[in-house]
Amino acid sequence: MDLKKFLNNNKDKDIVVIQGLGFVGAVMSLVVSNSTEKDYAVIGVDLKENSDTINSINNGIFPIKSSDPKIEEFYQNSMKKGNLFATHDLDAYSYASTIIVDINLDVQKKSDDKGNLNSFDVDLTPFRKAIKTIGKYCKEDVLVLVETTVPPGTCELVVKPIIQKELIKRKLSINKVKIGHSYERVMPGPNYINSIQNFYRVFSGINDYSADVTEKFLKSIISTEQYPLTRLGNTNATEIAKVLENSYRAMNIAFAVEWSRYAEESGVNLYEIVDAIRMRPTHANLMYPGIGVGGYCLTKDPLLASWARINHFDSTENLKQSEKGVKINDKMPYYAFEYMKRAFNLNSLSNKKILMLGVSYRSDVGDTRYTPVEPFYLSCLNDDALVEIHDPYVKNWDELNLTVSQDLDILLEKNWDLIIFSTAHNEYKNFKLISKLIKMENVMIYDTVGILKQTDIDSINAKNTVKILGRGDI
Amino acid sequence: MDLKKFLNNNKDKDIVVIQGLGFVGAVMSLVVSNSTEKDYAVIGVDLKENSDTINSINNGIFPIKSSDPKIEEFYQNSMKKGNLFATHDLDAYSYASTIIVDINLDVQKKSDDKGNLNSFDVDLTPFRKAIKTIGKYCKEDVLVLVETTVPPGTCELVVKPIIQKELIKRKLSINKVKIGHSYERVMPGPNYINSIQNFYRVFSGINDYSADVTEKFLKSIISTEQYPLTRLGNTNATEIAKVLENSYRAMNIAFAVEWSRYAEESGVNLYEIVDAIRMRPTHANLMYPGIGVGGYCLTKDPLLASWARINHFDSTENLKQSEKGVKINDKMPYYAFEYMKRAFNLNSLSNKKILMLGVSYRSDVGDTRYTPVEPFYLSCLNDDALVEIHDPYVKNWDELNLTVSQDLDILLEKNWDLIIFSTAHNEYKNFKLISKLIKMENVMIYDTVGILKQTDIDSINAKNTVKILGRGDI
Repeated sequence: MDLKKFLNNNKDKDIVVIQGLGFVGAVMSLVVSNSTEKDYAVIGVDLKENSDTINSINNGIFPIKSSDPKIEEFYQNSMKKGNLFATHDLDAYSYASTIIVDINLDVQKKSDDKGNLNSFDVDLTPFRKAIKTIGKYCKEDVLVLVETTVPPGTCELVVKPIIQKELIKRKLSINKVKIGHSYERVMPGPNYINSIQNFYRVFSGINDYSADVTEKFLKSIISTEQYPLTRLGNTNATEIAKVLENSYRAMNIAFAVEWSRYAEESGVNLYEIVDAIRMRPTHANLMYPGIGVGGYCLTKDPLLASWARINHFDSTENLKQSEKGVKINDKMPYYAFEYMKRAFNLNSLSNKKILMLGVSYRSDVGDTRYTPVEPFYLSCLNDDALVEIHDPYVKNWDELNLTVSQDLDILLEKNWDLIIFSTAHNEYKNFKLISKLIKMENVMIYDTVGILKQTDIDSINAKNTVKILGRGDI
Repeated sequence: MDLKKFLNNNKDKDIVVIQGLGFVGAVMSLVVSNSTEKDYAVIGVDLKENSDTINSINNGIFPIKSSDPKIEEFYQNSMKKGNLFATHDLDAYSYASTIIVDINLDVQKKSDDKGNLNSFDVDLTPFRKAIKTIGKYCKEDVLVLVETTVPPGTCELVVKPIIQKELIKRKLSINKVKIGHSYERVMPGPNYINSIQNFYRVFSGINDYSADVTEKFLKSIISTEQYPLTRLGNTNATEIAKVLENSYRAMNIAFAVEWSRYAEESGVNLYEIVDAIRMRPTHANLMYPGIGVGGYCLTKDPLLASWARINHFDSTENLKQSEKGVKINDKMPYYAFEYMKRAFNLNSLSNKKILMLGVSYRSDVGDTRYTPVEPFYLSCLNDDALVEIHDPYVKNWDELNLTVSQDLDILLEKNWDLIIFSTAHNEYKNFKLISKLIKMENVMIYDTVGILKQTDIDSINAKNTVKILGRGDI
């Protein structure tokens, strides 16, 4: 099927184009094409180099693996209705009443081999190019809804002038275009769809009219009666809100990290302390430390705000604490690695047979972007360990171009010196796996993510040949 | 009445001595003497130099002013029962089955005149002396329950050896004494009593027996069925828990501070952003920035953990982020002062008539310890302003040795250049006050603590002669 045919099949429908078919855009396309409020036809547009994703969507296989059953249900429904199509044909933009920007905006971090962040920069070139493409093709009265996390100031100082400039070149009006900003709070995993469809949203527009139209659109795809929208005064405000809330999370994790080191030195179990403190309602979201922070957001968003090239806000003094949060978190996997060696009294991992369970940065989804398992894994390799990796959601670890085993049973038959739980997939929290661990001899187990229950640890500890470094269920 | 007579009147009762009659100890004495589980006689012991407090308690006037009606109710009840007495007679310790340590442990902060914390130290001398006094007089099988916030390691490495040494000197057994640690979470203000009697507690002991006896005692004074106790493995753990939870709060405030400056520069209302983000259950305790952080805990507790003289935990690298939190917060009042001058376009406050409403660090209580109003007030004086201060809960501002007005009506009759809401006392949130503000001419109002509702601000703004710097209700 080509674009023309898709449009022909979906005459009279409101065309929504989603720019970028990644972890947000692809799932957003499902939510929009399954709107019960409005009959949308959805076209996902991505670059030619991502034709695997494009073809996958068009050929009946949704490209993202997740434990959320709604993903497949929504996808099948869209396929049946025939209102979802993916393409790299830029012409698609010209039919859209709404264009949703879901492309990435990366921070270039320069770190040393111990995770120390030395400097960082933001290259806006790909983002500008993507917005320019929209401007070249879009209708003059389109709604451009930016969901990408951007340095504060971007909608006003980058998106708006680029689109207006392109409209002028095409001799179109620059007063009819609507530009809105509403950041997503997507949580890949078991509540993937709900994290878009059934969750709170913040939005704004570059003017009142833009905000009104954005609100109307969001109401057609989100359960806003149960999860009311919040409208902020301008796009700076929503852009700041996004980086602020992710900085808050990153900083709270960094807080747990520095205290876990302190607790460890004083011979105290931090998990026990955190549990005690979480009894206080005001402290209920105090976080547990783990192997590290990964994913696309928390590893960079605080830096996006700090990076003041666009907006000229003087952030050099201001956001030091949030930046420091990112820096502390970046070092977590290196710390976990050294901690493991120290606790197991291992001078070197040379020729140690290591099984690493989980490479995704998050449980129950296949997403390896900035996963903390990567530096941990590379540290093991660097120490001449023999490492095998497993992940039920990741067949190919793109960043390292590695094949990931998906057969846990076979792996567990082998002999290991060290087994590391590195992602908290639910698949690992089962009786069969634990009973196999209990039967093993002379193995060290490092549970970085709280897979094992205290009762499991007690059973395993009953045998003296297995050494455990872990925490019990969290 | 003297101690002998009090003891005679309370024969057969379990004697509980509370060491230190400050904001925790005095109220703790009310909670213990009002136990419905056990018939305690409570003796509050403080130093001779605090004989005002001692006499006040014995003569029918509870020394702490608070908006919590339970304070007076509990106090009157204790007076009626005759089971509460205060003294500086150290002999009291010798009758106690339980001694609760509620004395202060101060951090000596060295800061410059802009609030920059240059260095800090902890002088344990007064604390050691107080514990030594207990050891000199106590029964050999006493329960010493430490509630003071201490550097982690203190119960094990300071309290225990001092008491044992004194017991040895008196040729008593060193094996019968019980030492427990259970930090308070006292919130001076409208829920003062409830913050002890009806709130979660964490506890531990220097051995299992100590922890058991501590648990039994706590159960006799706290509603533990509704607010279960959490027992931790050792006193290091509870000591760390306390400084950790206060560091968490201090750091979250510091986070709000740095983002409020960022938001201000980008012309955005941070309060609006925080409200939007607080819709997320995981972010519901994101804090609002204000005039500053005060009180006895948040201004020093993160430093107590950092200060590693007792325990030799290497915290030099570890707790930098929590320390930074304190540093950022320390500068808040100076920042608020500069911000006010900038926003009102005032080069100097010379001869400006300023009314400052509230000097307590916290709403609805009279507690000026480390109040952020102090540096703000001193900055105004330094700038040659003519400042008058009001606080319904503070008659004398001890730290500055200043009389504080309590007559708001008279003050509001005068002409002011600038009115500053510096503490969020409920008394200020009333119609009469607001309507007087609305009637004023040519005045600037700086609401640092969210006294004014948005509707108030709108009414006041309707008149062009009043300038407001504030936020609406938070």
